[in-house]
Amino acid sequence: MDSVRRMAERSREASYRLQEVPIELRNRALTAIAEALIDRKKDIVAANERDLLVAVKTGLAESLVMRLRYDSDSIEGSVKSVESLIRMEDPIGKMLSRTELDRDLVLERVSCPIGVIAVIFESRPDALVQISTLCLKSANAVILKGGSEAERTNKALASAIRDSILSVDKRFENVVQLLSTREEIRRLLALTDLVDLVIPRGSNELVMSIKESTSIPVLGHAAGVCHIYVDKDADLDMALEVSLDAKCQYPAVCNAMETLLVHRDIAGEILPRIAKVYEEAGVELRGDSITRNYIRAKPATSKDWCTEYNDLILSIKVVSSLDDAIDHINKHGSHHTDAIITGNEESAESFMKRVDSSSVLRNCSTRFADGYRYGLGAEIGISTNKTHARGPVGLEGLVIYKYRLSGKGHIVSDYVGRNAKRFTHRKLT
Amino acid sequence: MDSVRRMAERSREASYRLQEVPIELRNRALTAIAEALIDRKKDIVAANERDLLVAVKTGLAESLVMRLRYDSDSIEGSVKSVESLIRMEDPIGKMLSRTELDRDLVLERVSCPIGVIAVIFESRPDALVQISTLCLKSANAVILKGGSEAERTNKALASAIRDSILSVDKRFENVVQLLSTREEIRRLLALTDLVDLVIPRGSNELVMSIKESTSIPVLGHAAGVCHIYVDKDADLDMALEVSLDAKCQYPAVCNAMETLLVHRDIAGEILPRIAKVYEEAGVELRGDSITRNYIRAKPATSKDWCTEYNDLILSIKVVSSLDDAIDHINKHGSHHTDAIITGNEESAESFMKRVDSSSVLRNCSTRFADGYRYGLGAEIGISTNKTHARGPVGLEGLVIYKYRLSGKGHIVSDYVGRNAKRFTHRKLT
Repeated sequence: MDSVRRMAERSREASYRLQEVPIELRNRALTAIAEALIDRKKDIVAANERDLLVAVKTGLAESLVMRLRYDSDSIEGSVKSVESLIRMEDPIGKMLSRTELDRDLVLERVSCPIGVIAVIFESRPDALVQISTLCLKSANAVILKGGSEAERTNKALASAIRDSILSVDKRFENVVQLLSTREEIRRLLALTDLVDLVIPRGSNELVMSIKESTSIPVLGHAAGVCHIYVDKDADLDMALEVSLDAKCQYPAVCNAMETLLVHRDIAGEILPRIAKVYEEAGVELRGDSITRNYIRAKPATSKDWCTEYNDLILSIKVVSSLDDAIDHINKHGSHHTDAIITGNEESAESFMKRVDSSSVLRNCSTRFADGYRYGLGAEIGISTNKTHARGPVGLEGLVIYKYRLSGKGHIVSDYVGRNAKRFTHRKLT
Repeated sequence: MDSVRRMAERSREASYRLQEVPIELRNRALTAIAEALIDRKKDIVAANERDLLVAVKTGLAESLVMRLRYDSDSIEGSVKSVESLIRMEDPIGKMLSRTELDRDLVLERVSCPIGVIAVIFESRPDALVQISTLCLKSANAVILKGGSEAERTNKALASAIRDSILSVDKRFENVVQLLSTREEIRRLLALTDLVDLVIPRGSNELVMSIKESTSIPVLGHAAGVCHIYVDKDADLDMALEVSLDAKCQYPAVCNAMETLLVHRDIAGEILPRIAKVYEEAGVELRGDSITRNYIRAKPATSKDWCTEYNDLILSIKVVSSLDDAIDHINKHGSHHTDAIITGNEESAESFMKRVDSSSVLRNCSTRFADGYRYGLGAEIGISTNKTHARGPVGLEGLVIYKYRLSGKGHIVSDYVGRNAKRFTHRKLT
């Protein structure tokens, strides 16, 4: 049989064993992981240094080399995040609702793990620790595939995790497995009967290519074309400061602003000030024709409105109303994160209701849209999906529910036809 | 431009308009639909009679002709279900959680509509009313495609719905649209940017073929291979009665039992009794070799364990333990609905925890797994997905959430580096 199918079957079996592993044991396994990361610090850092050496030799882009680095500080960061995960409450076995259908016939809706999760991530080795531990906490089995440039680091991390959880309980066997080639991913994505959810973490190209090549549900975000709309009732100093933060605080990430929309009534006042600030920050500006009446900017093409630069480039458009701004965002944005700067309560409310994005913000920076800042604990990713989980996704994205119905010999025949018994459908607490 | 894309764009625009339509107006539109169904009863029934006539002429199978019938009683049933939907609380705008991230920086998680839903259903015209009204209540736009054999009925129903909601408010334009050909569905399923969720209601073949032909999320159930496991600690009279109900009360549906598992310790006692009851009910039995030591049955092949008969056929297997039963169900079942009959609390609990199905039952019939019986109100379908919505799905399957963050000029730069401000992450009520 195919080795990838065999691996996925082992994962499925592991996920079934996990259903009965109590939270105390799952937390003990997490503690063992934190300890193993510290114990094996030397080996892990050495493996990472070899990856870095190869990366530099093969001329990997500097930004990617930076993301690849996993040093002593990174290990400490990972350990801290595992420790905070241990403190979080068990997401499994929560009673979500309870209904009496009839006397002695009680329906419960209870949270449970999803099952087998496949995670494909690029560079950044701390993602491996974060994802494995989130899956473990939520009693899911996980199959991981990292970027080839981090191969040695990922292997060192995965074996630290595997060995430490196995030393706690042998039921943790195969709970975390590592794939090594792209060809194996391709085969994994065909296993609709064995893999329940795929989470790609990386470039838009990665996410798109995975969405197109599998009929397994995919949790991810396609792109981050985020907007700030500066309303006519905005505090302009605030608009300036928030816009600068949203573009420049960390331009390479999905929640950085890519397009600034400005109401025409204030364009003459704010645009020159904005241009000055961005010029000092080294941001290239691209504007529509009205914008270019006020400031120097390259002409923006229609492509610019849909582009995620992930760089110090900003497109600017002057709009004639709140409606125009909302239309532009819903049409050209990526439904990720969009903000309005305004002092007008009604405009803010309308914007937040009508903009169809996973995060809608008023009077603050788009850069806040993130699992850590939102207080979700660790983040498995940001989703622009409209089903299951949306926006920054923490533990709750790895959880689903099942219905449990307990009776005393109840049959449906008694509830149909003449003299049918009636359901009570009484909510219980 | 492609006419289907244009239709989907109109649907998207309608979904944006719906975001601001308050529940009072949505409920008034539902009332208008109920009234229109009564007002146009004659036309609708006449259209259905023409469909029936054609169906009989073209030799449609009798069971399908029965499902196609939509008479005066059916209209009354639809009206009742609309009325009960009106009484349900608004699923939109619910505050799901509220967190203070820092002073004057408040994060809210609020329920909102998914957006544009495509529904493909076979026969049974009442599905059109049910689905349109569920979408309307939850402020989603819907594109419907019914079976060609019900074309006239569906057109009559769709225009009753469209006309009545438009008379209430012109913002309801294009909220309900109807496709007419298969080729149009094919084109619709390619519009990943415009359609948020696809719900197929019909045969497994329909669901499977749609899952394979789109990368839009699909809500549906692949198959209903449901089991009852009669444990050694079962009350045998109860086992007999529940098993008969699960198989025979309505064998053509997905939550009917297809395989009966019997613990070997009681096989000798219960199997002859079961065989007798099923024989009287006209059920064909297929058994494994041990079963056939006790009763007359055709030999069951490995294919039988994975087959949804939807008919008066039952496969029977003798298992040697609870673990064996759970393994069999997880391996051969369809993760839909499975039941245990037992007086042993521990065995029941283990079964319900470890069987990986959307509904797990003890001491009652699998036929209870249904939105109406579960008290969800109307049902948009039963899902064997492991994400978003599972089991019988009501209104809540048409809802997602967005994050709303309100600040007073907050920027992320203040929360990084030296002297970083700290998040409070305080839960608010």
